[in-house]
Amino acid sequence: MLIVMRTDAAASDIERVLNTIHSMGYTGHELAGSTRVAIAVTGNDGAIDPAHFENLPGVAKTIRVTQPYKLASRNGSNIRPAVKVGTSEIGGGSFAMIAGPCAIEEREQVMAAAEAVSRSGAAFFRGGAFKPRTSPYAFQGLGLDGLKLLAEVRDRYGLNIITEAMDEHGVDAVIKYADCIQIGARNMQNFSLLKYVGASDKPVLLKRGLSATLEEFLLAAEYVMSVGNAKVILCERGIRTFGNHARNTLDLSIVPAVQRVSHLPIIVDPSHGTGHNYMVTPLARAAAAVGADGLIVEVHPHPERALCDGAQALTTDQFLDLARQLTTLLRALGPDAVAASTSSMSEQ
Amino acid sequence: MLIVMRTDAAASDIERVLNTIHSMGYTGHELAGSTRVAIAVTGNDGAIDPAHFENLPGVAKTIRVTQPYKLASRNGSNIRPAVKVGTSEIGGGSFAMIAGPCAIEEREQVMAAAEAVSRSGAAFFRGGAFKPRTSPYAFQGLGLDGLKLLAEVRDRYGLNIITEAMDEHGVDAVIKYADCIQIGARNMQNFSLLKYVGASDKPVLLKRGLSATLEEFLLAAEYVMSVGNAKVILCERGIRTFGNHARNTLDLSIVPAVQRVSHLPIIVDPSHGTGHNYMVTPLARAAAAVGADGLIVEVHPHPERALCDGAQALTTDQFLDLARQLTTLLRALGPDAVAASTSSMSEQ
Amino acid sequence: MLIVMRTDAAASDIERVLNTIHSMGYTGHELAGSTRVAIAVTGNDGAIDPAHFENLPGVAKTIRVTQPYKLASRNGSNIRPAVKVGTSEIGGGSFAMIAGPCAIEEREQVMAAAEAVSRSGAAFFRGGAFKPRTSPYAFQGLGLDGLKLLAEVRDRYGLNIITEAMDEHGVDAVIKYADCIQIGARNMQNFSLLKYVGASDKPVLLKRGLSATLEEFLLAAEYVMSVGNAKVILCERGIRTFGNHARNTLDLSIVPAVQRVSHLPIIVDPSHGTGHNYMVTPLARAAAAVGADGLIVEVHPHPERALCDGAQALTTDQFLDLARQLTTLLRALGPDAVAASTSSMSEQ
Amino acid sequence: MLIVMRTDAAASDIERVLNTIHSMGYTGHELAGSTRVAIAVTGNDGAIDPAHFENLPGVAKTIRVTQPYKLASRNGSNIRPAVKVGTSEIGGGSFAMIAGPCAIEEREQVMAAAEAVSRSGAAFFRGGAFKPRTSPYAFQGLGLDGLKLLAEVRDRYGLNIITEAMDEHGVDAVIKYADCIQIGARNMQNFSLLKYVGASDKPVLLKRGLSATLEEFLLAAEYVMSVGNAKVILCERGIRTFGNHARNTLDLSIVPAVQRVSHLPIIVDPSHGTGHNYMVTPLARAAAAVGADGLIVEVHPHPERALCDGAQALTTDQFLDLARQLTTLLRALGPDAVAASTSSMSEQ
Repeated sequence: MLIVMRTDAAASDIERVLNTIHSMGYTGHELAGSTRVAIAVTGNDGAIDPAHFENLPGVAKTIRVTQPYKLASRNGSNIRPAVKVGTSEIGGGSFAMIAGPCAIEEREQVMAAAEAVSRSGAAFFRGGAFKPRTSPYAFQGLGLDGLKLLAEVRDRYGLNIITEAMDEHGVDAVIKYADCIQIGARNMQNFSLLKYVGASDKPVLLKRGLSATLEEFLLAAEYVMSVGNAKVILCERGIRTFGNHARNTLDLSIVPAVQRVSHLPIIVDPSHGTGHNYMVTPLARAAAAVGADGLIVEVHPHPERALCDGAQALTTDQFLDLARQLTTLLRALGPDAVAASTSSMSEQ
Repeated sequence: MLIVMRTDAAASDIERVLNTIHSMGYTGHELAGSTRVAIAVTGNDGAIDPAHFENLPGVAKTIRVTQPYKLASRNGSNIRPAVKVGTSEIGGGSFAMIAGPCAIEEREQVMAAAEAVSRSGAAFFRGGAFKPRTSPYAFQGLGLDGLKLLAEVRDRYGLNIITEAMDEHGVDAVIKYADCIQIGARNMQNFSLLKYVGASDKPVLLKRGLSATLEEFLLAAEYVMSVGNAKVILCERGIRTFGNHARNTLDLSIVPAVQRVSHLPIIVDPSHGTGHNYMVTPLARAAAAVGADGLIVEVHPHPERALCDGAQALTTDQFLDLARQLTTLLRALGPDAVAASTSSMSEQ
Repeated sequence: MLIVMRTDAAASDIERVLNTIHSMGYTGHELAGSTRVAIAVTGNDGAIDPAHFENLPGVAKTIRVTQPYKLASRNGSNIRPAVKVGTSEIGGGSFAMIAGPCAIEEREQVMAAAEAVSRSGAAFFRGGAFKPRTSPYAFQGLGLDGLKLLAEVRDRYGLNIITEAMDEHGVDAVIKYADCIQIGARNMQNFSLLKYVGASDKPVLLKRGLSATLEEFLLAAEYVMSVGNAKVILCERGIRTFGNHARNTLDLSIVPAVQRVSHLPIIVDPSHGTGHNYMVTPLARAAAAVGADGLIVEVHPHPERALCDGAQALTTDQFLDLARQLTTLLRALGPDAVAASTSSMSEQ
Repeated sequence: MLIVMRTDAAASDIERVLNTIHSMGYTGHELAGSTRVAIAVTGNDGAIDPAHFENLPGVAKTIRVTQPYKLASRNGSNIRPAVKVGTSEIGGGSFAMIAGPCAIEEREQVMAAAEAVSRSGAAFFRGGAFKPRTSPYAFQGLGLDGLKLLAEVRDRYGLNIITEAMDEHGVDAVIKYADCIQIGARNMQNFSLLKYVGASDKPVLLKRGLSATLEEFLLAAEYVMSVGNAKVILCERGIRTFGNHARNTLDLSIVPAVQRVSHLPIIVDPSHGTGHNYMVTPLARAAAAVGADGLIVEVHPHPERALCDGAQALTTDQFLDLARQLTTLLRALGPDAVAASTSSMSEQ
C-alpha cells in the first residue's frame, strides 16, 4: 500500500502514519516528492484495509498495490491448464462451443436444438431449468423436469451438459443431472452460493456480473477456489453501460486482460452480450478472433415462440452457419497467430 | 407494446405482424407515419415478450409501454403508507434514522455505537453479523454471536434491529433475532432469496443493486411482494459509474422517481453511497433535503480499527453532530415545504 | 509514480527500470514486498508518462501519485475565494442563484422570466443565445439578437448575465454583451475553446462533461487558468450512467470532493441534471444542503411552449416557491452547520 | 410519438392532450389499454419535443418513435457506398488500414513509422499535429511543422494522410496538407466545428464520443452532412464505463448496429480503445472479424520514447505482424462469410 500525504501534512502527521504502520508489524518507507510525501508499506502478506489510514490527519489518499486474489492468479506460470467438463474440456488451447436454448421448454424444442448442436460438432449443451428472471411474472423454468430432459440430451447425443443453479437446492439437483454448474451474472457476488459450489467437485461456469470489475470477477472465482474447487471457467456476457443499441456492452478486452493475470479459461456469451439476433454472429466471430477459450450461444428451433430471450437466439440454421464460419476463422488464425500476439502475457 | 416497422417494410410484413398480434388474442392498431408505420398493441394484461416480433421481417424495433410491476405501483393512490418495523415505522411522513457499525465485531464496540445511536433519538440500529465481502479473505462476520449481540442492543436500548441475511439459513436466524431483514445490493437480483424473504412476515430492507434501473429495483420488490410480504422498504446506496472520487455515485434522483410511481418508502445510505467519511454528512443532509423517508448510516466508536469499511464510518461525535443538523434541517423544511414540491406526484 | 513489477520479474528487469528512472534524472526506490517488488519514483516535478515503463519487461503496472493540476488546487490553503461576476460574486461563502430560460426565444418570454428571477432576489440571469443541440434540425438559438435581449435584461433588472459560447466568434460576442461566459458540458474538453476563454478576463462558468472524472474536470479548469484567467466557476450538471429514470444522474458527491481539493466555487444545475420538472425542486434543495456554492436553474413562463428543454423548466410560480424553500433551508443550516461538516477539508 | 397517460388520468386530461396534438397540426390516436390509455401521434415530419406534453396533467411519460437522423440513415437502401479519401477509399466492401504514430514528433520518427506502414500494404497514414491533451502541461503537438512532415510522408510513400483538427484554424491548415480531417472523440459534439468541416469538401473521420449513444453519434454525422459534406467515416474508439482493466471499453457491437441503420463506413481504433499495447493486436483481430470497414492503429518506432500515448502504440515489428494476421483472417472470412451474417441488415 502507498499512503499519499497532503501537501500541508505536518511532520507529526507523517510520524503518526509511520507509527501506525509499525504497530501493525509492517515497515513504512518515507518517500519525499517535490510537493508532498508518500509512504510505502512493505512486509504485509495480504491487502491492507485503507481505513487504518484514510481518516488520519494529513493523509490525502491510499493506493493499494497488492493484488487480493491468489488461487486465480497465474503466479508467474506460463501454463493455462484446461478444465475438464464431463467427457471433454474447456481451455488449454482448444476452443469450446457451448450451445442450446435459453430455457428448457419441452422435449421437442430441446431435442431439435440438441440435434443441431450435435451436428455442428460442439461438445457442450446448455439450457436453463431454473431461470433467473427480472420479473416474478415471467416464465421461471421447468425445474427438475428440465434437468431430466437435459440428462436425456446427454444420453442421446453425448453432449456435456451445462446448466444454471440459483440456490443450494438447485446446486444439489444440477450436480445430480449435469456436468457443469453455471452461476449467473446476477449471482456473481452471491457469496453464500459461491462457497456452496466451492464445496462440490463439479466444474463451475462463472458469469461476469453486470457491473463487475476484473478484480471483482477474479475474487468471485477465488471464493469458489478458496473452498477447494479449482475447476472454474470464466464467462464474459456483456456489462451495463449507457449504451442502448445492444442489451449489454460486450467487453472483449477482458479476454486478454484475464489471460494476462489468471490461468482460468475465459469464454464469451455473445447472445446475452448483445441481446439481438443480428449481432450474435458478428460478435461470436470477434470473440473467437480476440482469443477467447470458447463461446456459449443460444440456439432455438423457433426463436419467435421462445418463452425466454427469443430475440437473441439463433435459429438452428444460423447456428450451423456460425459454426462453419468459426471453423474457417480458427483454422486461419491457427495456434501460432494467437500465440504470437500473447507471447508477452506472463503473470501480472 | 409499440412495434415500429422499417421504412422499407412491405405490406405483407405489416400484415404478418398484425396476424401475429391477433393470434395472441390482442388487438393491433396500424399507425401510418410520414416515413414508416408503427403498430400499437392493446388488449394485453401484462408485458409482452418483444421476441415474438423483433425478428419478424420488416420490424425495426419494439417499444414496451406497459409497466411490468403491479404491487409496488402506486396505482393512482395518493397514499404512501408506512411500514411497521419492530416498535416503530418507516415511511408514512416520518423520517427514519438507522445507524450502527458496518459489522458487529465485539460487545464493547457494539454497545458504544448503540449508546450514541440511542442518544441521538434514532429508533433503529444496524450492524452486520453476516458480511458479504468482495474478497474471501476479508472478515466475514461473527454470525450467530453477532445476532445475539444485536438482540442485546434491542433489550438494553429499545432500538429496533436491522441486519443483513445472505442466504436461507441466514434469513432463518435473522428472523429469530432481529426486526427487519436487510437484502444487500449484491443480492438484489438473487431471486431465490427474494422469494424466501417474501414467504416470511418480517419487513425487508431492499438495497438497490449497483447497476439496477428503477424498473429492476421495483421488480425486485415485486418478487418479495408477489409471494405475500408487502413490507418492503427500498434503499438507495450508490450506483456504479465511471466516477472515481467516491466509492459509488449516490443517485438522489431516484428518491422522487420512486415516490412518483411507487407507494414503498425509500431511504438513503450515504455511507456505502460515498465510501468516504468526509462525504457522509453533506450527502446525508442532501438525502434529507431531497425528501427521502430516512437514512441508514455507519457509525463506529473507532473507525480506524474497524474490521470492515472503516473509511466510511462516522465517529460517534460526528454522528451526533449529523443528527443535530438533520433535526434543524427537517424542522425548517417542514412537511409543507416538501409536500408543496411533491404535490404533482401522483402515480405514473 | 509507483512501478509495480510482476512476481516473475527478473533482477535484470528491476535493474532496467531503475536505470530508466535514473536516465530521466529521477530517483528510484526499490520496495521489496512479500511476493513482488515495487519501485517508487521521486524527484519528478510533474506527472510522468507511464509509457516509459509500461511495456518494459517485468513491469505489471504503473500507478500515478502526483496530481496533475496545480492552479486549480487548494495547495494547502483554507481559503476558497469568491469569483466576481458583474456586480456580484459566486463562491466565498455566499449562495448564488442563477436562473432563466434554457433558450432566449423572444422579448416577452425573456422579460417574464427575468421579472420572476429578479423578484426572487437572485443576482444572476441565464439564457442561451447560441444553443448546442444534439440534432442539427433543432432550434439553434437567436444568436446576436438573443444577446441583445440579455443585455436589455441587465439594464432593466440589474441582473448579471451568464450565457453560453460555443466557439471563438461566440466568445467575442458574449464578452461584449454578458458578464460570464458559459462553456457547455459537450465543450468541457474543447481545449482550443478553453484556451481562448483563458485569454479573456471574463469569468468562465465551466460545466462538467457528461463523462468527466473529477481530475479531468479540474484539468479543464486548469486549461483556462494556465493561460491567465483564474476566474473559473465549476458546475455539476449530471453525468451519463445506465440510469434511465432521469435524463442524467446528478452527482452531488462531487461538491464536497471539489471543495476538498480545489479553491474553485462549484454550483449545481438540477435542470439539466435531471431533465424532469418534478425532480428539479427536490434536487435543488439537495444541492443546497450538500453545500454547493449556488444553483443554476431553468425557468420559463410557459414551459409547454419552450423551444428547448421545456420538460425540465420550472414555471415562474414553481421557481418562486423553490427560492422561498432555499431561503428557509440555508438559514436553518447556517454557515456553522456547513462549516462543522467541512472543517476537515483542507487540501489533498 | 407515443404519449402514455397515468392510470388515474381523467377524461379531461386525455381530451387536453388530444387538443394539444390537434393544435400542432398532427393527428392523435387514442389507444385504450387494460389499465391506462396511450395516445399515438402521427402526421409529424420530424421529431416532436416531448416538453409539449410531459408536464400536462395526467401524462405519465412520452416515448419518441421517429428517428431524428435522415442523411445518415440507410433509408431502405442496401448500398453502403465507399468514401473516397485521397487516392484510395474507405468502406464499400474493402478493408482500410490507417496507421501511424499518435503524435508527429520529429522527422526520423515519422519516416520510420511511415516506412513500416507503407511496407504493410496499408493505404493510409495517421499522425497528430494538433493534439487534444487532457492536461495543459502535456505535449500539444508540432502544429504546422507536423502537417508539413505529413505532407512529406505522402510525397515519399504515396500514403493518404488523416490528421486531427481541433478548431477552425486547424481545419484550414489540415485541408491544405492532408486528405482527411479527423474530429476527435472530445469534439464529437462540438457542433460549431462539425458545421465548419461540413462546409468543406474533405472527407471527415468522426470519432465516437466517450459517452455517445448510437443516435448521438449519427446525429453528429448528420451535422456535417446537413451542411453539405456527405463524406463522413465513423470511428469507434472505446467508451467510458466503470471498467478499469482497459483505458476505455471498446464497443464492437456498434459496428453491426451502425451497418444496420446507416450507409456510412465505420472503422475501429483498438489503440485508444484499449490503451494497452498487449490488447491492441487481439482487439484489432476482433474488429476485423466483427465486420468493421477498417482499422486505425498507433505505430511508433520507439513506443517507450513517445511523447503521447506510448503505452498503447505497437512497435513497427508488432504492427507488421498484425498486418499479416489480418490478411490471413480477412482472406479466410471472405466477403461471403461476412455477407451471410449481415444479409438481414437492411435499414431500420
